[in-house]
Parts: sequence; C-alpha cells; structure tokens
Amino acid sequence: MDGTLLVNCALSALGGFLSYRMIKEFIPIFLQRGMHGNDQCKVSNDKVPEPLGVVTAAVYLIVMFLFIPFPFFQWTTSEIDKFPHEKFLAFLSGLISICTAILLGFGDDVLDLRWRHKLMFPTLSSLPVLMVYYVTNRSTSVIVPKYFHFLLGQQIDIGPLYYIYMGMMVVFCTNAINILAGINGLEAGQSVVIAISVAIFNIVQLIRLESQDWYHYLSLYFLLPFIATTVVLFYFNWYPARVFVGDTFCYWSGMTLAVVCILGHFSKTMALFLVPQVFNFLYSIPQLFHLVPCPRHRLPKFDPNTNTVGMSMSVFKSRELKPLGQFCLAVFQTFGLLHRREFERDGEMWTEVNNLTLINLCLKLFGSMHERSLTILLLSIQAFCSCVAFFIRFYMASLVYDVVH
Amino acid sequence: MDGTLLVNCALSALGGFLSYRMIKEFIPIFLQRGMHGNDQCKVSNDKVPEPLGVVTAAVYLIVMFLFIPFPFFQWTTSEIDKFPHEKFLAFLSGLISICTAILLGFGDDVLDLRWRHKLMFPTLSSLPVLMVYYVTNRSTSVIVPKYFHFLLGQQIDIGPLYYIYMGMMVVFCTNAINILAGINGLEAGQSVVIAISVAIFNIVQLIRLESQDWYHYLSLYFLLPFIATTVVLFYFNWYPARVFVGDTFCYWSGMTLAVVCILGHFSKTMALFLVPQVFNFLYSIPQLFHLVPCPRHRLPKFDPNTNTVGMSMSVFKSRELKPLGQFCLAVFQTFGLLHRREFERDGEMWTEVNNLTLINLCLKLFGSMHERSLTILLLSIQAFCSCVAFFIRFYMASLVYDVVH
Repeated sequence: MDGTLLVNCALSALGGFLSYRMIKEFIPIFLQRGMHGNDQCKVSNDKVPEPLGVVTAAVYLIVMFLFIPFPFFQWTTSEIDKFPHEKFLAFLSGLISICTAILLGFGDDVLDLRWRHKLMFPTLSSLPVLMVYYVTNRSTSVIVPKYFHFLLGQQIDIGPLYYIYMGMMVVFCTNAINILAGINGLEAGQSVVIAISVAIFNIVQLIRLESQDWYHYLSLYFLLPFIATTVVLFYFNWYPARVFVGDTFCYWSGMTLAVVCILGHFSKTMALFLVPQVFNFLYSIPQLFHLVPCPRHRLPKFDPNTNTVGMSMSVFKSRELKPLGQFCLAVFQTFGLLHRREFERDGEMWTEVNNLTLINLCLKLFGSMHERSLTILLLSIQAFCSCVAFFIRFYMASLVYDVVH
Repeated sequence: MDGTLLVNCALSALGGFLSYRMIKEFIPIFLQRGMHGNDQCKVSNDKVPEPLGVVTAAVYLIVMFLFIPFPFFQWTTSEIDKFPHEKFLAFLSGLISICTAILLGFGDDVLDLRWRHKLMFPTLSSLPVLMVYYVTNRSTSVIVPKYFHFLLGQQIDIGPLYYIYMGMMVVFCTNAINILAGINGLEAGQSVVIAISVAIFNIVQLIRLESQDWYHYLSLYFLLPFIATTVVLFYFNWYPARVFVGDTFCYWSGMTLAVVCILGHFSKTMALFLVPQVFNFLYSIPQLFHLVPCPRHRLPKFDPNTNTVGMSMSVFKSRELKPLGQFCLAVFQTFGLLHRREFERDGEMWTEVNNLTLINLCLKLFGSMHERSLTILLLSIQAFCSCVAFFIRFYMASLVYDVVH
C-alpha cells in the first residue's frame, strides 16, 4: 500500500477524533450564540444547534492542510526539478473550491442567501478547478458508444461545451445534497454512502488498471478525510438528532464530490452514484420552477399521535394550476409517482398533491413510518443505487463502449 | 502598461461597484437576521449591521476568480508546454490562504472563537503558501548588513527558521489589524493606507528594476481589487458608521497583506509599513498576557456631554499587580507612554492606568477629541509611517546593505 495513502488514513482518523471532540465542544457554544433550529418532526421543542457542519468542515480543512506536504515529499528532498506541478495545482485548486463552498454554505446558514447568490458563487468557485483542468489536461473529448461510431467516430471533441458541462456538474453537486434533505441523518448519511462508493471505485480502479492513475489517489486523498469527519457528524445527526448539519455541510460535501470527479475524470461514473439526487431534482422541478405551487417547507408531516412522519401536501385552487404544471402532474400520475386528490370547498375545486420530493414519494409508496425508518429506507435506496452503479460501470459499460478504463 | 494589469484594474472597478451594491443590499438582511453590534461611542443606540466585511470579501473572491485566467492567457493559446506552473501555484496558494482567513474571520464573528482556534487556524492556512514557496524558490537566505560581513559573510542561510519566520508573519498579520481596531473607519482605513503603500512600492520596483519581477505584478493583482472593495467598505464604515467591518475584514485584510509580502519576497519592507501595528502589539503585550489586568473591552471611553472620546482605564488594587507587570508599566512611564494614578479607597491603594493600546496612547498625548478626529489622527500616523518606510527602504537601506533590490 502506498505510504502517502497510509499517512492520509492516519490523518483521517485524527480528523474523525478531532471532529468528535470539536462537535462536543461547540454544541454549547452554538446554543449560547443562538445558532439553532427547531426539529419539526419531534414532539419536544428542544433547540438543536445548527450548522455543526462548519465545525467538521473546518477540521477537514485542517487535516487537508496538514496533509499537503506528503504527496509531494519525495520530490522535495532530491528531485525538485522534476516536481509534479500539475498534481500540486490539481490539489490546490480542489482545496480552493471546497473552501469557497464551505464559506458559501456558512454564509447561507447565517444569512439565508438568495437563489442567484447560491448559483453564482459555486459557478465562479469552480473556475480554479476548470482552469487547472484546462492547463493540465486539455482533453475535452467524449467517447462515443460503439453503436454510433459509424455516425460520429470513436470519440468526439465537444470543446468548450465540456467546460460548461463540468461547470454545471459543480453547480448540480453543490445543490444536490441540499435538496434531498430535511430528516435526521439523511444529508450526512447519503454523503457517506456516496463517498464510500466513490472511494471503492477509486480503489478498484487502482487495483485493476496497470497504469497507476494518480488522480484516483488524489480522489482518495480528498475522500478519506471527508468520510472520517462526516461519519462522526452522521453519528451526532442520527435520529434523534443532537446537531443539524446545515447548508454548510451540503455545499461542502457536494463540492468535494464534484472536485474529485472532475479532477479524476470520472464525472459520468459519479453521475451514476448520484441517481437518487438526480431523480429528486427532476421530480422537484415542477415545484422548484413554480409550475406547481410550492409551500415554504416540503418536509414530511409529523404526526405526534403515532410518532410517525407522512407525506406533506401542497393544496391549491385547481384553476390556479398552470398548463405546464398540469402536464407534469399528469406524467407523474401516469407512472404512479403522485398522490392527488380533488375536492370542493366554498364552491371551488381544490387540488391536493404531495410535495414533489423523493422523501414524500417514499412515504406515498411505503406509507407513513417512523422518521428513523424513513432515513434507513432512503439510505438503503442510496446504497442500492451504488450497487447498480457498480454493475453498470463494470459490466454494462463494455457492452456500449469499446474501451472502458 | 501591462494588459493583464489593465484587466485587473477594470475588474477592481467592477469589484468596487459590486461592493457598493451588495453592501446596500445586505444591510437590511443583516439587521433582519439579528447580526448587528452596538456603537459604544455614540449617544444613539442604533443597531449597526456586522460583519459587512464578509460581503466585500465575497465580492473580492468573485473578482479574483474571474481574474484567474488572464495572467495565464498568453500561454494557454499557443505555448501550453511552457505554461508557468510556479506562478499559477503562487496565485492559487494565495487564494486558498485568503479564503481560509475569510472563513475563520466569519466563524469568529458568528461564534466568538477562542484564542487557540484563532492562532491554530491561520498557522495551518499558511501551509499552502509556505509549501509553494518551498517548491518554487528555496532561498531561505537572509542578506547580512555590511557591517557584519566579516562575521557572517554576505548572506546567511537560516533554513527552516525562515519558514517559521514566515509562518509567524502570517499569524501576526492576520491579527495585527484586529488588535488596532474599535473606532469608526479605523480597520478599513489603515488597511487601505497600507495596501496603497505596498502597491506604490510594487509599482516603483517594477519601474526601477530592469528585471520585471513577476511577483510585484502578482502583488498588484491581489492588492488592487482589495483596495477597490475596501475603499467602499471604508466609506460605509466612516464616522458615523453605517456598518461594522467585523473580524472577517481584519483577518481577510491581514492575510492578503501577508500573502503578497511572502510570495513577493518583501516581508521586511512590509514590516516597515506595519510599524503602528507592531508598536500597538508590543504596547499591548502586558495586557494581552495578563501581566496587567485587562478589562473585557479596551475601546476609548465616550463622553456624551462633550461628544468626545477619551482614554479608557484599567483600575485595580495596587497589590494585585504582578512584578513583571509593574516593570512594564515602569518602562512605559519612563518614556511618557502611560497615564498612571494611584489613589486610596476603602483603606486600600488602587492603581489606574490607561488601557495599553495605540488609540488610548494617542488620547493621552493629544487629549480627548471627537471620534472622527481620532480616526483621522491614527490614519495620519499610519500614512506618516508609510512615508518613513519609503525613506528607509529606498535611501537608508543602501547604507546598511550592499545590494538592495
């Protein structure tokens, strides 16, 4: 095993330990400063400190700063003229983007930023990574599935489109975790499942491929400390949550995933691991773009009598529904993905549909359940998708592509 | 004039404009979220939003991200194999350290961090810059004043000590602005004066030196957007302050100054520009290390009857003063740098001394005055020190050193 990786593992363990200590130390500080939220799916009205994600993120940065010299140590002692500047650049650009994402997230938690700020900032903070991609590996080619070779050739260079694609990947990732969120343990849990899946993918690739692709190492260097610190956060966020992770965590984890897949050139594989998030985003679109009325919160609804959570609803006058919204709902209904009820009140027709999130969809399909069961269900779906992703990546891809690395 | 510098100027102007717009937009948001402080030197008790420094810092980061491609554009179009990785590394490492400092400052504003966190984090966030220094320019030599050549030779390699020195420079800079603070316009004002001084120094060096030292350009790239955004913040923070800059601003400005002088190899010159901060730090030491009792706040004392500010005092029982504290106070008194009064109350001897800050010292020397006059006085001192620094740097240095670049 690579020595640098061992150092990384040791520092990750230190990071996990530090996270545990620091979260315990900061819980009373957060409460004292009035930084807390209400758990809307509980009987008790205890204040839960938020956003503790910033504490683990700070520990993560400390670990990464301490780790910086190690991957490059061998060159500094004797072969300074052969120093791998491109790798160091990749490392630093990733750190900038992650650090910026943490700052954005913390700002969002404290100030409740508007949508345009939330979209503009990650786009810009991806510039260092894209710039490094540009100067170190200018390949903007996409491998063409073999059934289309006769039409497009073996690969096709999509040029600037590739950078736009990567920029969109960053924006999507930084928001992906954030929109599949709201119940205890879900944000940190899904991030851990995805990060572990990606780490397994990196390790498999390092073992399978003869050429030791350094970028799989880089990915592990970023992911292992992330997993170690986030598992601790997950422990504190598990039902009943003693801390909330906050937007800080969501942006941080999303950006970390985006950075490793862009620098490691495996953004398509990453997309496979993010299928639940992609589905949740697509399913949410009618409400996110206000084609269907969207209440302030779309969390599941807590029933204190049974101590379970159930679907939360959006209720509106039927004639207020826009035609495009009508169409989307009809499509969802056709596939059995929608609870819909029409009723009359005060001489007008009203429509009730479930809020369009994966969480509510699960509650529609499986019925109301305990919040902890819901988290377990959603994390199981995430893990199942990872298994399918591995199957597609390692067995199916060879049916579609000639060369699969 | 260099084309890249023109782009930087244009982006800086954009940054100034954006800062103005964003500060105006965010003032009500801060107040609404309960992020505000009290101006302790005013009759009115209006809430002043804080820390608005995070808004200008975010604008600064946006400007820097937009600027990233320009210094490197010429190489990307044709000579990608000659791409100056070392310069790009310097740029990115500086950005990481600045971004980390902003995050730390914002965390401090929101959470009131403890001293050990405030010292540990900047130390670690300086690692990327030091690492880049290590791999791009391993010179750790110090030029010896010519009177000591017979003893030490022309220059002496102090090795690892040089890195420790630079790390301490970072920690000092990030805290230097923060401890010379507390009255309207002072934090932003002194930063503007120092940054403009450094920028003038860079320009003079670029004009004087035949060899176009790229690191003076780099320093300007970092400083011009900083000056543009900070001038706007200064305008809002000027007496009577409509916003407070917060610790966020102090860490951000301190780290920006530290980064440019480390990457540009002119930390000794920077120290000359920071003489008021160094003096303030040395003068504060007895209270910072609790050799002399230190009250919670050391701000000047507001007199609502005359609408002026005067010295604030530390009052304690004489027998509680430690011997080392006694010694420090005696030294200060010898040089006329201390107000001291002994009096008897309830059968015990009490001592009253002014709080040991440059601000209170000015009030001792020049008497109570209006807060705005005090800021003008302190900024004049800062500007005067810059003039002296230029004199020392360009005329006196050749008397002491053989070679002065």
